Amino acid sequence: MDSSIVAPIAGFSAMAFAGYLASRILKHETGTARMKEIYDAILVGAVAYLNRQYKTAIAFVVTLAIITAYFLGFFTAFALIMGALFGTASAHIGMNVAVRANVRTAQAARSSLNNALRIAFHGGAITGLSVLGLVVLGLSGLYFISGDPVKIVGFGFGASITALFARVGGGIYTKAADVGADLVGKVEVGIPEDDPRNPAVIADNVGDNVGDVAGMGADLFQSYACAMIASMIVGQITYGLKGIIFPLLMGAVGIFATILGTFFVRMKNEENPLIALNKGIFVTGISSIIAFYFLAQQVIGTLDVFYAMLSGIVAAILISLATQHYTSYHRRPVQAIARAAQAGPAINIITGLATGLRTTAPAIIIISAAILVSYKCADLYGILITVIGMHAATGMIIAIDSYGPITDNASGIVEMSGLGPEVREITDKLDSAGNTTKTICKVIAITDAALAELALFTAFFKEAGLEIISITNPYVVVGLFIGGALPFVLCSFCLQAVGKATFEMVEEVRRQFREIPGLVEGLAKPDYSRCVDISTRTALREMIAPVILAVISPLLMGFVFGPETLGGLLAGSITSSILLAVFMANTGSAWDNAKKYIEAGYLGGKGTTAHAAAVIGDTVGDPLKDTAGPSLNALVKSMNTISLLFAEYFLAYAILM
Amino acid sequence: MDSSIVAPIAGFSAMAFAGYLASRILKHETGTARMKEIYDAILVGAVAYLNRQYKTAIAFVVTLAIITAYFLGFFTAFALIMGALFGTASAHIGMNVAVRANVRTAQAARSSLNNALRIAFHGGAITGLSVLGLVVLGLSGLYFISGDPVKIVGFGFGASITALFARVGGGIYTKAADVGADLVGKVEVGIPEDDPRNPAVIADNVGDNVGDVAGMGADLFQSYACAMIASMIVGQITYGLKGIIFPLLMGAVGIFATILGTFFVRMKNEENPLIALNKGIFVTGISSIIAFYFLAQQVIGTLDVFYAMLSGIVAAILISLATQHYTSYHRRPVQAIARAAQAGPAINIITGLATGLRTTAPAIIIISAAILVSYKCADLYGILITVIGMHAATGMIIAIDSYGPITDNASGIVEMSGLGPEVREITDKLDSAGNTTKTICKVIAITDAALAELALFTAFFKEAGLEIISITNPYVVVGLFIGGALPFVLCSFCLQAVGKATFEMVEEVRRQFREIPGLVEGLAKPDYSRCVDISTRTALREMIAPVILAVISPLLMGFVFGPETLGGLLAGSITSSILLAVFMANTGSAWDNAKKYIEAGYLGGKGTTAHAAAVIGDTVGDPLKDTAGPSLNALVKSMNTISLLFAEYFLAYAILM
Repeated sequence: MDSSIVAPIAGFSAMAFAGYLASRILKHETGTARMKEIYDAILVGAVAYLNRQYKTAIAFVVTLAIITAYFLGFFTAFALIMGALFGTASAHIGMNVAVRANVRTAQAARSSLNNALRIAFHGGAITGLSVLGLVVLGLSGLYFISGDPVKIVGFGFGASITALFARVGGGIYTKAADVGADLVGKVEVGIPEDDPRNPAVIADNVGDNVGDVAGMGADLFQSYACAMIASMIVGQITYGLKGIIFPLLMGAVGIFATILGTFFVRMKNEENPLIALNKGIFVTGISSIIAFYFLAQQVIGTLDVFYAMLSGIVAAILISLATQHYTSYHRRPVQAIARAAQAGPAINIITGLATGLRTTAPAIIIISAAILVSYKCADLYGILITVIGMHAATGMIIAIDSYGPITDNASGIVEMSGLGPEVREITDKLDSAGNTTKTICKVIAITDAALAELALFTAFFKEAGLEIISITNPYVVVGLFIGGALPFVLCSFCLQAVGKATFEMVEEVRRQFREIPGLVEGLAKPDYSRCVDISTRTALREMIAPVILAVISPLLMGFVFGPETLGGLLAGSITSSILLAVFMANTGSAWDNAKKYIEAGYLGGKGTTAHAAAVIGDTVGDPLKDTAGPSLNALVKSMNTISLLFAEYFLAYAILM
Repeated sequence: MDSSIVAPIAGFSAMAFAGYLASRILKHETGTARMKEIYDAILVGAVAYLNRQYKTAIAFVVTLAIITAYFLGFFTAFALIMGALFGTASAHIGMNVAVRANVRTAQAARSSLNNALRIAFHGGAITGLSVLGLVVLGLSGLYFISGDPVKIVGFGFGASITALFARVGGGIYTKAADVGADLVGKVEVGIPEDDPRNPAVIADNVGDNVGDVAGMGADLFQSYACAMIASMIVGQITYGLKGIIFPLLMGAVGIFATILGTFFVRMKNEENPLIALNKGIFVTGISSIIAFYFLAQQVIGTLDVFYAMLSGIVAAILISLATQHYTSYHRRPVQAIARAAQAGPAINIITGLATGLRTTAPAIIIISAAILVSYKCADLYGILITVIGMHAATGMIIAIDSYGPITDNASGIVEMSGLGPEVREITDKLDSAGNTTKTICKVIAITDAALAELALFTAFFKEAGLEIISITNPYVVVGLFIGGALPFVLCSFCLQAVGKATFEMVEEVRRQFREIPGLVEGLAKPDYSRCVDISTRTALREMIAPVILAVISPLLMGFVFGPETLGGLLAGSITSSILLAVFMANTGSAWDNAKKYIEAGYLGGKGTTAHAAAVIGDTVGDPLKDTAGPSLNALVKSMNTISLLFAEYFLAYAILM
């Protein structure tokens, strides 16, 4: 088929355009010697951590590949390794570019807001394009070799496992450093954020890169890859060859639309940077939708799949409105949390939890409506195409998600290099535009992920040949219960690790302020490396258990109780992971913005007991929204892909069916 | 059948013995005039609140009864009202006795530890026996009239709805008062717990009675009734008449075993009261098991159901060990939470959340094992009999659960009447024995409830004639998602209400300390009634929404999408309610005990910043463990019973099947 060449071309285009953007970024100056010094410290810390993280991940992946090769043949093992490598590569590219974009954004902010915006955004766009490009290249390549979408599930599994390492490890790293730096620096010593006197400040900046850029990149890579694989499998069953090609072509459309969108992210005069970012998203979205319309007509020959997909886009818009309602500080819920802080931290936290728990309702209703509408339009394949349609904006979502930590780091560099308040004001302006879009992107990503999990689950029971998995069977109910508990356990691991690491970090920062004479006065330099080391060590140690959980639990369930019970397990884990992910993301954002509301001068502003209480809420929310919540998707995807890989074995060898 | 007369005899015996215990309690003295005054204030507040709560509940129940009568006939409506009345009665009896036992326990503590123990315990035992007695009387009576267990489902529904009101309303009342009193009294003004200068102190004591006694009684009443009804329905299908009688006879055994157990709760000399309580539980447990053995042999004619039931008892024991591990301050997890408090409240809270989330794993694994073992032993009926077996100890669980607030109130009365530290020491000793057993009872009750929910779900799909409810059907998945979100929403309502009410309470208490001259010095009296009013108003207002949620969501789902989607909804709500209930109960207890660990003198003891941080954790945990968590069971039971009632209608009239 001719059109199958379009996907690899798009993949190469993405990589080429990313390379072009990178070369442009590197032409910009890195600024003063002091800026260079800070940038070096961040770069060294980030690269050192990522290398160690990937060493552990690769050891694990190789072990899994050997087992896979034995049971499922060489090609699946090869796909697994490719998935892990491509996922790792996209994260590495993103992180390496981001670190280099940080300092150049800071330098550009000294002369032009528009230039600073474009460097930061292009830094993010490179990660976005790399993810899209590598997914499309990897999958079309593997499909070209094997000719069977079922054979490339290994790619998704490799990507998911790597992403789980990256999300959990990166999430622990970044939050331990962030919370540790704030608790002592801001709260106890009373120095501002990003102050160079704070021993944890470099670790904090490294954390933004390894967690929010690399971790997020690896995660969205696996989410997109898994959605694509599931669609290709179910597409083949439903429409044959064109059902396989169609998702790949949609991926190609996503790439070109993202490239087009990047040209629109630029500012005229003193415009709000938020408008520039929104223009980019809008152009990408509209051009994808138009292209999908013709694609559905030409390739599938019916518009049913197009209408199914539209329901997904409507869902994404509704979800972002709901998220805004519950987490923006211009709205009642966040203001209520801020007011509650006047009665102390406990009431602030209780009210925040209440708000976060409530947000699961609109999210779940919107997701459910999208599922039912797309199912009505085009059966199970409709649900899968909806997922791919929603992922069309993935490139932009990643771009904006990475833009956040880049501008955040740029602000840090400005502060630490003493570039003065007028430059800081510019980077803060960029940063705040990123924060607004980031929460919304996060929740859309959760929605995409939820539907993609459902897509994989669909591929699983189709592959396992199960027409029926009935919850009138107590075994399935037990699967549901245990599957439901797994996301709780993962969150526990993540929070426990952040708690431990932060505790150590707090002790270390307190120690340095106590023992290094002249540190508080700015006469002596702190020992940054010890804080970097605490984050690194804990993250590496604590990321192992969740991965083992993700691999062992479906295998155990499948081999002992068979595929039906395993189906229950998967359904349970999907249900509870969506609920927890939405709850954690929104609770964290709501507390964060309640604090910002007070900092904006309401209810007495900074320095009040209400502000102190809101800071505690924000700190509790940090690991919820940035460590535990974001790790859930990779856990469930890993469980789903490994189940899909071994589906036939479970059917044949389960002990107690 | 001759043996069917045993159940009503047991029911009357329970009531008679409860009456005997009550007459004995009333013979004890109420102490000084000051004690009488406080006792009156508590009594007036509690009765006033309960009457208003039940007025709202009855209005609601009557409306439902009219609708039910129209659709399902007069008898079902009658059963519904009976369930509501009997549930209400058991709660009223419990609360009325508890309030009277409080002051007498305080008075007895002036002379004898053993007498004080026995008054407090008998106060609790009366509630326990009333619940058992009224369940058995109500169900055997209704069955005698109708001759069909399906016709008495209304009893369970009426009881569940009333319990939902009682749990949500009572839970909001008690926590708003408790947290409000502590936040200003202990933290801001620095006066001890139960100090008569605190304006919220009477509201706090009233709260213990309306929440922890009345709310808990109504809740366990519905849990037991529902488990019994489900067993009778499935029993009829499996074994015919003897399958119906068997659960009732097990109920009778539970009553006699509980009566026997009460005789063993007495102390020799200076023994720990905990040992006395444990003796009571042990005697009840062992004598029930022995009786069940013969009952199974004689009535059913096979020991399969007995072995099924044993698995439930083993599960209960294992669950209590796991709970102890995670929530006792002699163990590592709670000590880690306490240590985390040294790095501030945020880390204390993060570590507590991590511990609570983790406890879902052992709980779910033990429950799952019990389900599978009992299913293997005696099919679906095995699961149901396991539930009844686990409920055998319900009487004792209620007795000990009510014993807690009685001794807590007694301590309060001792403090407020200025009876001196040596009397306070005795009531504190009694109180602390209650606290230890209470957490364990709470988690066993959750386990019972979870299995009972599953039992009702089983009865539902049997009644709806559904052989299969398959999660390969997207409608069922949507049901699962929405059902999973409902418990999150209920928790949100509860926490929001407590947050709001506490906020108001804090403002009011602060105002009184500011505006009433001489209050801090003890020269003026606070205005207790305004605080009582805040708790009352909020509780009454905020308990409506959850009940509407419980009634509307299954009806909507059933009538729009049909019984299969509704089945998904029920399964989703069961799964996520168990997880949330366990999480909330254990997180709250862990924070509570971490605070107590520091108060016991570790890590610097009271007055340190670690202690202040631990107090914040404890305060956050209070509404989790005492409002949101305990309300979940009644929500899910209400949803299940109403679905069971309308099962046939959904099948016939669903719009979009």
